[in-house]
Parts: sequence; C-alpha cells; structure tokens
Amino acid sequence: MTKLSGFPEFLPAERNVELIVLDHLRSVFELHGFASLETRAVETVDQLLRKGEIDKEVYTVRRLHATEDQSSDVLALHFDLTVPFARYVLENAGKLEFPFRRYQIQKVWRGERPQQGRFREFTQADIDIVAKDELAFHFDVEIAQVMAEALSGLPVPQLTLQISNRKILEGFYRGLGIAEPTTVMPIVDKLDKVPADKIAELLQSDAGLTSEQASHCLALAEIRSNGEGFVAAVRALGVEDPMLDEGLEELRQVVIGAAGADGVDVVADLRIARGLDYYTGTVFETRMAGYEHLGSICSGGRYDQLASDGRSTYPGVGISLGVSRLLVPLIADGLIADRSVPSSVLVALVDEESRSASVEVASALRARGIPTEVAATAQKFGKQIRYAERRGIPYVWFPASPQTDGAHQVRDIRVGEQNDADPNTWAPPADDLKPRIKEQNT
Amino acid sequence: MTKLSGFPEFLPAERNVELIVLDHLRSVFELHGFASLETRAVETVDQLLRKGEIDKEVYTVRRLHATEDQSSDVLALHFDLTVPFARYVLENAGKLEFPFRRYQIQKVWRGERPQQGRFREFTQADIDIVAKDELAFHFDVEIAQVMAEALSGLPVPQLTLQISNRKILEGFYRGLGIAEPTTVMPIVDKLDKVPADKIAELLQSDAGLTSEQASHCLALAEIRSNGEGFVAAVRALGVEDPMLDEGLEELRQVVIGAAGADGVDVVADLRIARGLDYYTGTVFETRMAGYEHLGSICSGGRYDQLASDGRSTYPGVGISLGVSRLLVPLIADGLIADRSVPSSVLVALVDEESRSASVEVASALRARGIPTEVAATAQKFGKQIRYAERRGIPYVWFPASPQTDGAHQVRDIRVGEQNDADPNTWAPPADDLKPRIKEQNT
Repeated sequence: MTKLSGFPEFLPAERNVELIVLDHLRSVFELHGFASLETRAVETVDQLLRKGEIDKEVYTVRRLHATEDQSSDVLALHFDLTVPFARYVLENAGKLEFPFRRYQIQKVWRGERPQQGRFREFTQADIDIVAKDELAFHFDVEIAQVMAEALSGLPVPQLTLQISNRKILEGFYRGLGIAEPTTVMPIVDKLDKVPADKIAELLQSDAGLTSEQASHCLALAEIRSNGEGFVAAVRALGVEDPMLDEGLEELRQVVIGAAGADGVDVVADLRIARGLDYYTGTVFETRMAGYEHLGSICSGGRYDQLASDGRSTYPGVGISLGVSRLLVPLIADGLIADRSVPSSVLVALVDEESRSASVEVASALRARGIPTEVAATAQKFGKQIRYAERRGIPYVWFPASPQTDGAHQVRDIRVGEQNDADPNTWAPPADDLKPRIKEQNT
Repeated sequence: MTKLSGFPEFLPAERNVELIVLDHLRSVFELHGFASLETRAVETVDQLLRKGEIDKEVYTVRRLHATEDQSSDVLALHFDLTVPFARYVLENAGKLEFPFRRYQIQKVWRGERPQQGRFREFTQADIDIVAKDELAFHFDVEIAQVMAEALSGLPVPQLTLQISNRKILEGFYRGLGIAEPTTVMPIVDKLDKVPADKIAELLQSDAGLTSEQASHCLALAEIRSNGEGFVAAVRALGVEDPMLDEGLEELRQVVIGAAGADGVDVVADLRIARGLDYYTGTVFETRMAGYEHLGSICSGGRYDQLASDGRSTYPGVGISLGVSRLLVPLIADGLIADRSVPSSVLVALVDEESRSASVEVASALRARGIPTEVAATAQKFGKQIRYAERRGIPYVWFPASPQTDGAHQVRDIRVGEQNDADPNTWAPPADDLKPRIKEQNT
C-alpha cells in the first residue's frame, strides 16, 4: 500500500493543527459578516476552460461505465474556488443580496506534477466581496483588513502581505508614453526569476520600449515601503497620469487600512503584478519567512468583471489563502497539536463492573462542554495514565473508589498533581479544553 | 446556465442550516473524544472495487490530457467514507493509537441516477471506533449512544433509530436447523418491499426452508419493541441457540444504552438486517417521520473485519449519517435559517466621510465576538434598515450623530425598539449572536 503522491493526508494530531487554523479563519471571516458557501466539486469542462490557462491541469470526472454518448457534457473537478463562485453568482444572482460577502473553504484539485508546496488535492480558503454593476473601492480596504486579521492569528512564521495596484502600473506606463501597457506587465512580472538587466533588454526587444522607458519601468518595480512612503518614491520618478494618481491613492488606503495586525508585515510592493489578466486594481501576494520557495501563499485582487451575464456585470475583490500549501510544509517541519484526540479528560475505570460509574462522570463533564472519553479497559491505573499520555489527554479522572479514599479525584498527568474534584463543578482551565498548537522546543 | 442534476448547492441561508447541523454533530462527536479525520477524495479504482457491489456508480478521475500509458493506476472519487477509512487505518496503523475513535464529515460521490434523497454529490458524517485484533462490545453501546445524542439535537422531525443484531438472526436460523443462514437474510431483508406471504414462498423455494421454518423466520422479523420487550417475544418462539442468546443480550444493552435522547425513538427491530455482507453483530438504521420514502438516513453496525493486512485485523463499529439526504428535502420543504449572513449587527453609516467611525464601532463589537458588518453605502437610515432586514440581521447600530442626539444607539429591527448603547459593553442576547433555525409558521 503506497501513498498517492500529491494527495496529502494528515494524522489525527496534524489534522488538529488544520482544524485550529480552519476554525480561526472561519471565526474571523464570520466576525466580519462573510457568509459561508460551498459549491459542488465539479464544473463542466467548458466552464473551467473559459479561463483557458490551465487546461492541462484539470481532472475530468466520468462514470466508470459511461458510454460514449453519455459523455457529451464532460465534468471536471474545480481547480480553484473563483471560477465556481463566479458561476454560482450568475446562477443565483436573483436570490443573492448584493454586495455579497462570502467565504469558501474547500478542496480543489489540479493534475500538476507534485512538488514542494504543490499538490494535486489541496484546501483553499477564499474570501470575496461581489456586487452588481458597481463595487465601491472601500471593499478593497476591507478585504485586505479581513485577510490580514485572519493571517495574524495563524501559528505560522512572519508573513509579508505585499500589495500593489494595477492602475499604478498602467497609469505609469501610459504616462511614460508606452502605447501598450499590457505588453510590459508580463515581462516585469518575471523580475523574481530573471535579472534586471535582462528584463531591461526584453522590454526593449519584445515590448518596443526605449532604454529610458525601460529603466523607468524597472525603477518603479523596485519601489516598496511599509507605509505610504511609496507615494513620494513614485512621484520622484516624475511621471504624471490621472490613472497613476488614482492607483497611488487606492494603494495608500489599502496599505494603511491593512497595517497593524500582529505577525503580518503589510508592504506596498510595486513589483507585484499577478499573472492573471482579470485583475484591474488592487493586487495581493503573501510570502512566509523561511518559506519563500513556496511562492505566494495568499493572493488575490480586484476584478471589475468577476462574472457577466450580458445584462449585468458583477465586479469583485477577493483573496485566496492556500491552506495546504502553508500547512503541509510547516507540519512536515514539526508544527503539531498537543493531542491526537479532542478529549481533555480520560475517565479511568476502576473495574469493568463499574463502567457505568465512569460513564456517568463522563456525562457530567460533557454536559458542561468538557470533551471526555472513558478508558477502554480496566487496566492498572498506571497503564490508563499511559493511555492518556500517548494521546496527549491532559487529565485523568479517578472515580470514587477505595483506591482514592472514596473521593473523586482528577490528575493533571503533565505535572502529576492529583486533587479531589466534583464531576458536576470541576472544569479544566480554558486553555486545556481543546487541542492547541504544541510549543516547539527548537 | 442550467444546474447540474444530482449536485445540490445551497443558498446562503440554506447553507447556514447545514452549518448549524454540522457544528452540532462535530460538537457532540468531539465531546465524546472522536478525533476529526479527512481522507483524500480519490482512491484507486482497485481499492474501491474490492467491495465489488457498486462499480457502476463510481466516478473515475483522469487528467484531461492524460495519455493512455499514464492511466494504468486509475483513480476514482470515493463513494463512502468507510472504504477510505479502512485504507487509512491500514496505511497508518503504526502511527495510530487503538482503540481509535474518529469522525469524518466529507462529500462523497456516486454516479447514480438522481432521485429524491439520492444525489451524485452528498455529505456524510461518519463515526467509527476501530481497534487492533479485538474490539470490546461496550463500544457498540457507545456508538449508539453518541449517534443518538447527535441526532437528538438536530432540527428535524422525530427520528426512529432501529437496531438489530446479526447474531440474533444467525443464531435463530441455526437454532431452527437451517444449514445456510446467509441465504435467508437477503430474502427476509426484502420485507419492506415484498408482502410477507411472498417472502414465505421465496424462503421455501429459494432457501429450501420448510413451511414451519419460514413462518418462524417471518415471526422473528415481526418483532419490535421500545425497550427490552423483544427478548421475551423472541424467547416465546421457542428457538434455542448460544449465538441467539449472545445476540439478544447485546441488543438489549445497545437498546437500553441508546434510549433517552429527545426526539429519537430507539427501537429493537428484528426486521433490520442491512444488505452489506460485512456486518457481524449490531446493525443500525434510522427513519425520519414523514420522510420514510427516503429510506434509512443513518445506518451502520459492527464489522469484525473492517480491515486486515495479513498480520492484524481491525474490527470496528460505526454509523454513517446522510447529511444531504436528510437536509436537502427538509430545506426544500422550508427548513431555513433566520439570516443569510453570520452578522448579528449592521453598523449604519451616517455619511461616507464618517465611515471610519462606523468601522470603529464594528471593531469594538467584533473584539467581543459579535459578528458585525458595516453598511455598504450611506443611504437614508430607512434604507439601511431594509438592507439589514433583507439579510435577516437583527440589529442596526447608529453611531453617535446629531440624528441620535449625539449618542450611540442600537435598534432591534424585528420589534423596532431603539436604545442608547456603548460599543464597548453592549452585546446581543446569546440567541441572536449566530444564525439559528427559523421557526416555521406551518
């Protein structure tokens, strides 16, 4: 039995890490009024290939014994949550209230070659705000704030949220007298991988720029700042354009609005352009300290036409967090929960005949929200304590018996402290109620 | 754009019903120490077809541009959560602590013809306890108790948990002198659809029973009782067998152990046999009042050989709730949440210039765990109230302004009551904090 490459699965204590992360994300999204949504796992191939870019990565889905004539409307697993959301919005436009905030946490599938941080099945957590016909700019600020707050509470290394705005690039290029700004972006976008002088050459050879225009484009791409310092830096390049002004002001508001979340550096970074055509303003990427090789683990932006049905267009702004891309490498490097079960308490068994007494204690604890299991067998107490230890359960409850002088007792097995306790009133400290991330020794 | 038949999707207020149900299930499962697990959506076709029964219903998965030679190890979407769990247990046996309690809430896929209560994509919620080599009987009682408690809190009509035990059937048939008890079960199992006299005929013609044996088998299948009354009723049929005794005692313990949960009738029902070969003791089915046509919405039992790797066997007991099978028809019949968003409060906008004041109020409320959104635009207050109403948001907050005599005010828009309030101390009643099931008028 060999594991399937690219389809990560977690052990229970690892899954608890993922649950802690997903619960935190959900909690932040819901505090901000984002509604939960799930779409079906499959779309028609036609729908998925509209974007045209990644047809090679799609997994098609067919009944095992489908005959040829049944396969006209071929289905495939969705490869992101944006395309299904756009389809869902169009399909249900008459029944949704706009502006519509939704979060969507689901598995997606891509037939990619598995490699570090790239999987064939992985979980994404998306938030988007979509409106009908027009979506005010303040929603860009909101999306950035909500995701920065969500990222802030994660048990992960320092994150850098890099933000830019397509209008700055397009306005700047236009202000430079470049006729086709869209030919410049894909070249500048390669700055991560290709040296600057080579980019300058390409801008001249492939996009027809003058040497001075090319060096201005590169100078723009070098600008980054933690606060609004980028505005003065761009102004210093001496290029004027109304769209540039608009982009600078938008980026300024987003960067200031998103700043302040612990563990998340918010940076205006004019190198960020995002490859995808459909972004029209704000764009986001996110890097994790020490894991830069994973690329961006949280990306998105503003798209003025998320969906359109001929009569109406639906502009949106959204951002997508690669939960698996983030967690699988961190878990491989030792990120783990303190237990493999939800249980905070193991109720010991004095003997099999008194199982009902132990079950009663467990019921009393559960009635007050304390996750509790009863020992599987009436082994010696030392073995029952080991049973709890192996699972990371912090407390063992000993029901009243001659061994405890007729009193109920509870033992914190991490420190070996044992005290009398009443099953109807005792509770563990709040921190011990649920699994939490284990402190790393390193 | 047409919806895909058999792939149900919820609107936001409907999804809130599903979330309430899933949260409740998870909470009960975790209170009882069941660990969360997810397995990948795909298995190899070989793995899935081991059970051999439903190969026609399997959806295979291939890369769109896979060449023939790449498709040797064909993948397919899982059609239940038991087969993947068995594979997971074998694959990770060395890293799991047994007995291992797990719950698994995931989508499954079947290429069935869509019909009422049958979908091509649907959500199941499974709990299982699996051990290595031996699993004590008290876990059967525990599984029944946990699922009865989980079912008890659901916003659904009266449920009947029907329990039987294969050992009763097999022991009884043996005690009657029937050589091949396994030929009898599939015929008796048709009692739901086929009249009793026809079953009696089939038992004689197909299973070689005498007329008296056949009538005894039918008499056994007629027995049902809320408590342990079934034991005396079986005894009265005068059949003796050690396995029958064991089965009667097991069923007695399970029925008594599971009883007492509000909204769930627990019944010993000797007609229940479950079609699947692998059950070896306790078996469960569940009917919902008024929705009997859906069949069993929650089924399972004891399987002495969930998995085996040659060296060890892994016996288990489990039960699977068909969340979609339950909810899709109930939602179609009007089951709905009181709101389409998680927000408990909408903070109104006095004007666009004071958006930051409204955002500040929202932050203060969120900091104390109150889901809050800020109005999209500074329309007249009446329109902002309508905005909240359409989403089912119960409270509208008016930031301090001349319109409120300089005080913060909050309005319960369901009753029109408006009072001064402090964003740092006010909270809604606990019941209004999260979406809940809407009271039905009918």
